[in-house]
Amino acid sequence: MSNEIETEGAQRLERPRVEALDRILGEPLKVLDDGFVRVVDYMGDDSSIVQAARVSYGKGTKKVQEDRGLIRYLLRHRHTTPFEMCEIKLHVRVPMDCWRQWIRHRSASINEYSTRYSIAIDAAQATAADQWRLQSTGNRQGSAGFVDAEKGELLSKQEADLHRESRRIYDARLEQGVAREQARKDLPLSTYTEAYWKIDLHNLLHFLALRMEDHSQLEIRSYAARIGEDVVAKWVPFTWEAFLDYRMHSLSLSAIEKEVIAAVAKGDKVGARKLVEERGWLEPSDKGGWKRNREREELEGKLAGLNLAAPW
Amino acid sequence: MSNEIETEGAQRLERPRVEALDRILGEPLKVLDDGFVRVVDYMGDDSSIVQAARVSYGKGTKKVQEDRGLIRYLLRHRHTTPFEMCEIKLHVRVPMDCWRQWIRHRSASINEYSTRYSIAIDAAQATAADQWRLQSTGNRQGSAGFVDAEKGELLSKQEADLHRESRRIYDARLEQGVAREQARKDLPLSTYTEAYWKIDLHNLLHFLALRMEDHSQLEIRSYAARIGEDVVAKWVPFTWEAFLDYRMHSLSLSAIEKEVIAAVAKGDKVGARKLVEERGWLEPSDKGGWKRNREREELEGKLAGLNLAAPW
Amino acid sequence: MSNEIETEGAQRLERPRVEALDRILGEPLKVLDDGFVRVVDYMGDDSSIVQAARVSYGKGTKKVQEDRGLIRYLLRHRHTTPFEMCEIKLHVRVPMDCWRQWIRHRSASINEYSTRYSIAIDAAQATAADQWRLQSTGNRQGSAGFVDAEKGELLSKQEADLHRESRRIYDARLEQGVAREQARKDLPLSTYTEAYWKIDLHNLLHFLALRMEDHSQLEIRSYAARIGEDVVAKWVPFTWEAFLDYRMHSLSLSAIEKEVIAAVAKGDKVGARKLVEERGWLEPSDKGGWKRNREREELEGKLAGLNLAAPW
Amino acid sequence: MSNEIETEGAQRLERPRVEALDRILGEPLKVLDDGFVRVVDYMGDDSSIVQAARVSYGKGTKKVQEDRGLIRYLLRHRHTTPFEMCEIKLHVRVPMDCWRQWIRHRSASINEYSTRYSIAIDAAQATAADQWRLQSTGNRQGSAGFVDAEKGELLSKQEADLHRESRRIYDARLEQGVAREQARKDLPLSTYTEAYWKIDLHNLLHFLALRMEDHSQLEIRSYAARIGEDVVAKWVPFTWEAFLDYRMHSLSLSAIEKEVIAAVAKGDKVGARKLVEERGWLEPSDKGGWKRNREREELEGKLAGLNLAAPW
Repeated sequence: MSNEIETEGAQRLERPRVEALDRILGEPLKVLDDGFVRVVDYMGDDSSIVQAARVSYGKGTKKVQEDRGLIRYLLRHRHTTPFEMCEIKLHVRVPMDCWRQWIRHRSASINEYSTRYSIAIDAAQATAADQWRLQSTGNRQGSAGFVDAEKGELLSKQEADLHRESRRIYDARLEQGVAREQARKDLPLSTYTEAYWKIDLHNLLHFLALRMEDHSQLEIRSYAARIGEDVVAKWVPFTWEAFLDYRMHSLSLSAIEKEVIAAVAKGDKVGARKLVEERGWLEPSDKGGWKRNREREELEGKLAGLNLAAPW
Repeated sequence: MSNEIETEGAQRLERPRVEALDRILGEPLKVLDDGFVRVVDYMGDDSSIVQAARVSYGKGTKKVQEDRGLIRYLLRHRHTTPFEMCEIKLHVRVPMDCWRQWIRHRSASINEYSTRYSIAIDAAQATAADQWRLQSTGNRQGSAGFVDAEKGELLSKQEADLHRESRRIYDARLEQGVAREQARKDLPLSTYTEAYWKIDLHNLLHFLALRMEDHSQLEIRSYAARIGEDVVAKWVPFTWEAFLDYRMHSLSLSAIEKEVIAAVAKGDKVGARKLVEERGWLEPSDKGGWKRNREREELEGKLAGLNLAAPW
Repeated sequence: MSNEIETEGAQRLERPRVEALDRILGEPLKVLDDGFVRVVDYMGDDSSIVQAARVSYGKGTKKVQEDRGLIRYLLRHRHTTPFEMCEIKLHVRVPMDCWRQWIRHRSASINEYSTRYSIAIDAAQATAADQWRLQSTGNRQGSAGFVDAEKGELLSKQEADLHRESRRIYDARLEQGVAREQARKDLPLSTYTEAYWKIDLHNLLHFLALRMEDHSQLEIRSYAARIGEDVVAKWVPFTWEAFLDYRMHSLSLSAIEKEVIAAVAKGDKVGARKLVEERGWLEPSDKGGWKRNREREELEGKLAGLNLAAPW
Repeated sequence: MSNEIETEGAQRLERPRVEALDRILGEPLKVLDDGFVRVVDYMGDDSSIVQAARVSYGKGTKKVQEDRGLIRYLLRHRHTTPFEMCEIKLHVRVPMDCWRQWIRHRSASINEYSTRYSIAIDAAQATAADQWRLQSTGNRQGSAGFVDAEKGELLSKQEADLHRESRRIYDARLEQGVAREQARKDLPLSTYTEAYWKIDLHNLLHFLALRMEDHSQLEIRSYAARIGEDVVAKWVPFTWEAFLDYRMHSLSLSAIEKEVIAAVAKGDKVGARKLVEERGWLEPSDKGGWKRNREREELEGKLAGLNLAAPW
């Protein structure tokens, strides 16, 4: 019997381990006022990704690239399956409101603290007086700036009162013998829950790409940043570096954006402008200037970022 | 070019449709005090399952069984892939507390009402005075019986007050300009949400098997029953019938339970009892009788259901 | 900050490891004439399942059951999520024909040897003269018994010739400069391929339940048995034992089967028979006896296994 | 009872239907020499995507954008869940070699023609004399150009002989009574198979993005193009248009590529070159010029496409 994938000779195989991650195994990394993320277990490291990718090469193929280069290549060209070969299990403590967003990611295994079985965790996320965020006007689903401190003081007081009152009623129900599964129904969404959350690296990177992003809500963004910067960066440093270069900090140009930029770059302002007009992105506004157009504004942002002037 | 799967001759193909389901398309089927389930769209019917299963038979194979028989066979023997060939899309209105359980089923597509983008739905699940359930003593995660009406009256009043107060604070935050994504953080879990929920029939049956079951919480069980009895039963009647026979009302016997029942059935009481003793399920209690043992108790229930006497 | 799930005190956490599995890490476990299964990496053990299940209990809940009992309980009652907390990665070498069945299981991560990138593995599954199986007459998709040795000799010779000729043509194409991706198109399905295959324990047990089963094709059944008996049994012994008791060797009774057995058990032969007749399972045959009916025959098998006589 | 998602008033709901797709329902769209793709059923259309996306807006929100604009926005910003709300079922006929790649996409439901149950389809993909592709030298897993016609003639003859011989042996085995599941083991990978394949639009677009791409193998690329251009374009025209603009014909710039382009665009050649040197992408070659470096070459291609000169 011969086999084509290198089987590491006769010596006994050992599971790959990562010193830097072992050092924080089990340690709660604090997030928000009372939440945390803890690494409970993991499988694989950067070299496991390389090993899986090299299945394709077969016996006798020399190492054409260093590991780091190969990982960068895989991530750049969205060869995603080798990243599924690494797995991590976290123990997290999160407000339910935030957890509602979290579990929309379906490619993970979850065991959550049960408030049918046990008494609900006696903690709700509290907001400091200077942490009340104002509704964004530009972005219907975002926030921008903070409520002024005096008003914030009052909001925080009301919040604390509501937390206390909700818990009092929860406790009173339990005392009356109400079933836990029903008593919990009016706990605030800010109540903390805990869970084991297990996911492979490919799906974790997808989670991070969405949740570390600017438009993501601050709360889940805080968890994502913790996981990215304090866990993934330690666990698979080559992958993390490539992820930042090719995913987090990358820029996507659409077919039309490519054309416009190419026209601008060769100095063809008229042609560039025509492309945009034809799309209906340059309609004169009654107040002078142009009517608001989301695609044009996105393009303007990209042009500016590339040091190119919009020819309109 | 020939092809092996029957391609329905030359006549134009039409999408399968189900009269009985078309009749309730878009109609809200009420659940709980203010929730509902609405069928928005569907794909396939009982015949689509048969069609997919018959792929195996190929050209020239005569129809060995009627459709109903084949569907029963598939369900009985857990040939699940043909049931994935049917798909349904529901619009549901559910308390968030219940929705938290619902979305643990990961094999579905979901678009939920966004309280980052829009103002939260102004409705929370209310409990009638005679509907406060008592904590079960036998089952740590269940309920049994009701709080007496007088106490219930008070609980319902407290509940209404808490709903009102939570909403007042939510509205006040919005008035102060607090971002919707943050203002919502202390809404009670009983607040209603809405969503489109799309799932294939195989995964829907799995959902129903778990959520129509006795140990499932009353709230989600009410939704599951509505979907099963008023939607699935109309949509795929053969499948629904087979599902009840072979899944919902079936009984599973473990290796040891089979052995014990076989011994009891041939009158070998001594042998049956010995099997159970060897497992350590028959330990004398200090108070007479046997120590509680969950596996033995489950077996006793099954013996009784089959009209067989436990020989201990 | 407090937390409800026990965080193992102050001492540093270590990844769970399994001696018995570490001992065979990387070792090829032979299957068929030239295939194998090798454990490359794993995450978690029996205790990880217990840990995840206990999330529900929260702080202060005493260990009500031993680990073994809890695992048996979870498996018996199909609480499947804790089993997703264990993960294993195998390196397998399999004939493509068998691999075609294997990858129908979608809940796994896969990196397969690429014959676009590399020259195809120069090995095809060969059949010994006494291993040619006869088509089953009872089961359209099964086999039963063997072709006699003399004929088998010839079949094996033809097989070897065909393997040689197919490979010769493959090699000739490559020599002519034909692209590997096209040259491979006429390799026999028996050609070996290799892959990394990573899956969680819940999905692995599902795979084993289907593929260790009698009706499963011999080739994939051989792999499943190897994985079950030589890998899973070592890795998570409590789970393996429970799996055999509650899944592999369990028996499912449908609603009607329960009723018939209950009638038979209390001696009500007339009633039992009536139940079966009403279903149309007892139609007299022209040749005497009953017409063949699959559900009745399955029931007869179950009655016999439980030492109960069919009253017809 | 009120509800927040518009429930289309009192009038009866009808399933969305697409004229252009209904017209080809059931019609085999030819691919390769003997394969096809047939639309068997579908659910939803462009408006279903919009409907799902608008869940977020709630009652009373005016239609801020036209449907087309919203679909473009969703696709551009990778809001993928609304695209899961459409589903399609295809009947396909594909060589097994190609099918092996196809089913690597796990987010689909599949029922395949069974060669355990039925006799294998008597057709294998044949290659015309001028269609033998040469191995690419630049791309280890690709092809480029064709074998010259004379040689091709011979290759096609050998191919036909091998197909004939493989089938002869398959038939002979069946005649000897060998079980179908075993007899098939040496059929060539080019043998056609058939299947029902059901997938949601989001996952279908992902499949098309990967399989319509230049580096994808010609065979599966032919199927993908058929499905994209003749099915998806008819089914959801707004989505198809947006998909081409924002996925198929888009360009992704990494963090470093953005920096270099921005430097080049403002005329800072020295700075641009320094950025590239620091990465180690500009190492002098012994033969003059630069050593080959994949990332630099990719960047050079992008610069050229945008009409910008590489400053090295």
